[in-house]
Amino acid sequence: MIDVATLVEQAREGRPRAVARLITLVENAAPQLREAMAALAPYTGQAYTVGLTGSPGVGKSTSTSALVSAYRRLGKRVGVLAVDPSSPFSGGALLGDRVRMQDHATDPEVFIRSMATRGHLGGLSWAAPQALRVLDAAGCEVILVETVGVGQSEVEIAGQADTAVVLLAPGMGDGIQAAKAGILEIGDVFVVNKADRDGADATARELNHMLGLGEAREAGDWRPPIVKTVAARGEGVDEVVEALEKHRAWLEEHGELAARRRRRAAAEIEAIALAELRARIGDLRGDRHLPTLADRVAAGTLDPYTAADHLIAALTTS
Amino acid sequence: MIDVATLVEQAREGRPRAVARLITLVENAAPQLREAMAALAPYTGQAYTVGLTGSPGVGKSTSTSALVSAYRRLGKRVGVLAVDPSSPFSGGALLGDRVRMQDHATDPEVFIRSMATRGHLGGLSWAAPQALRVLDAAGCEVILVETVGVGQSEVEIAGQADTAVVLLAPGMGDGIQAAKAGILEIGDVFVVNKADRDGADATARELNHMLGLGEAREAGDWRPPIVKTVAARGEGVDEVVEALEKHRAWLEEHGELAARRRRRAAAEIEAIALAELRARIGDLRGDRHLPTLADRVAAGTLDPYTAADHLIAALTTS
Repeated sequence: MIDVATLVEQAREGRPRAVARLITLVENAAPQLREAMAALAPYTGQAYTVGLTGSPGVGKSTSTSALVSAYRRLGKRVGVLAVDPSSPFSGGALLGDRVRMQDHATDPEVFIRSMATRGHLGGLSWAAPQALRVLDAAGCEVILVETVGVGQSEVEIAGQADTAVVLLAPGMGDGIQAAKAGILEIGDVFVVNKADRDGADATARELNHMLGLGEAREAGDWRPPIVKTVAARGEGVDEVVEALEKHRAWLEEHGELAARRRRRAAAEIEAIALAELRARIGDLRGDRHLPTLADRVAAGTLDPYTAADHLIAALTTS
Repeated sequence: MIDVATLVEQAREGRPRAVARLITLVENAAPQLREAMAALAPYTGQAYTVGLTGSPGVGKSTSTSALVSAYRRLGKRVGVLAVDPSSPFSGGALLGDRVRMQDHATDPEVFIRSMATRGHLGGLSWAAPQALRVLDAAGCEVILVETVGVGQSEVEIAGQADTAVVLLAPGMGDGIQAAKAGILEIGDVFVVNKADRDGADATARELNHMLGLGEAREAGDWRPPIVKTVAARGEGVDEVVEALEKHRAWLEEHGELAARRRRRAAAEIEAIALAELRARIGDLRGDRHLPTLADRVAAGTLDPYTAADHLIAALTTS
């Protein structure tokens, strides 16, 4: 296997294969990941990240593709990360379905990657930010993070972006579903896609009502805009970009960009620390220590909490 | 709230309210849990635990109830723990549905409790063994652990019992489903319930084939028996008890009982240690340390792995 320093060098030059390989390291939680992240760190912190979420059928993939086109017209290098927390399959398979994305397949300034996390515990909480870091270091100025479903993980991922876009479509009872999933709270920008269908205005009104957008707000508060689009025909997409740029400016002006990135980094550090501690606990299984503690707990001569204290002490002196 | 020492004392006397309260402490991950487990430890290690699992509709609840009756005829004090990993609701609600169990509701020598874990991460891996410990200390000689579904968590819980019983019913295509869920591997005793229905013999034959029971085994290996029952009429239930007692004798003879209990205790200790480490990481959020690390990671002046190392170091010196 090619060495990590070379991969990082090539990724910085924008070579797609190197970018893909680094994200595969993330996906596989490969041992070289630590070295890769250390090498990438100095080149990160530039990309503006946008999370896109919404129920299946609202046109997430089409909207993402249309946003890529819009940002390309502005001359930006764009990254797309499609995340599927539930899928046990990795990259390729998913991307195969994404016909829309193939419009950009030959554009050297667009990096598209889908990522699964193979069900490892807490996987996405550290994997998604690390994949973003790869795209960031590869010079992507905008990174679109598209999540597949509307579960807790998806909401979390989208909510960790600089700007979270929540997509809806008319006549899907989406508003209520979205409210249930806690998705409305994370939306910085709302998009009612398929706005050429009946009920688009009703959906926008319902959303407006649920968000309490008619109510008075503190001066300086961000007021989430609702944009209507027909992404398949590119209609309204420039307005979405405009809304995103406004939100980004607001974030910077209010110190919120730094705050969000701090929260995202903190969550990532915590997740890595937990994974490391879990691995260290696993290592102790081969040791005499844990079986001895377990025997005492099984016999009732030691309670499991005191045993856990001993285990933690052993972890941290090893 | 009544003090823990008194609760433990009353639970040891077999008072149902005290037993229920202690299990509620487990369910809520209450702060008093540590003290409770320390007080209970000396009185544990006696109960024989039997896990029951199988697809919905095979008659788990009916079979559990019939087993309770059979063990009561032998004069044993019996505990039942019904575990639902997916349910966000706690005890009472579930039990309400369990009409069969109400046969035993007035028997002072039977303790029945259902438990949900409210979705806390890794919850069941430590909650189930602790609830077992409460019933164990309350003098239950046999504890039946019934899981609701056939997911990964259910299989794990049943597999951690001294003896795992896998239930099937004719004509449900159960064999294949069970094989998929990895459920066949954990079965020490197989029960084909509703054996008065068509296809019971075919199900038993299919199972026999899938388990490779016709093949030669090493001398001393346990050969999982297949017992046919009609639990609703109590038919075959004594044969199940007989199979369980044989397996228990085999476990003791081969040192497997101690080995299984060691594995169960080790998994529990690990789960408690991880929960504790997670809590300590959470505590650091209020500290200056994590935000500072997060800022450096967000700025690209520190990689997240090195930051996680710092976090772990801070954990263990705090």
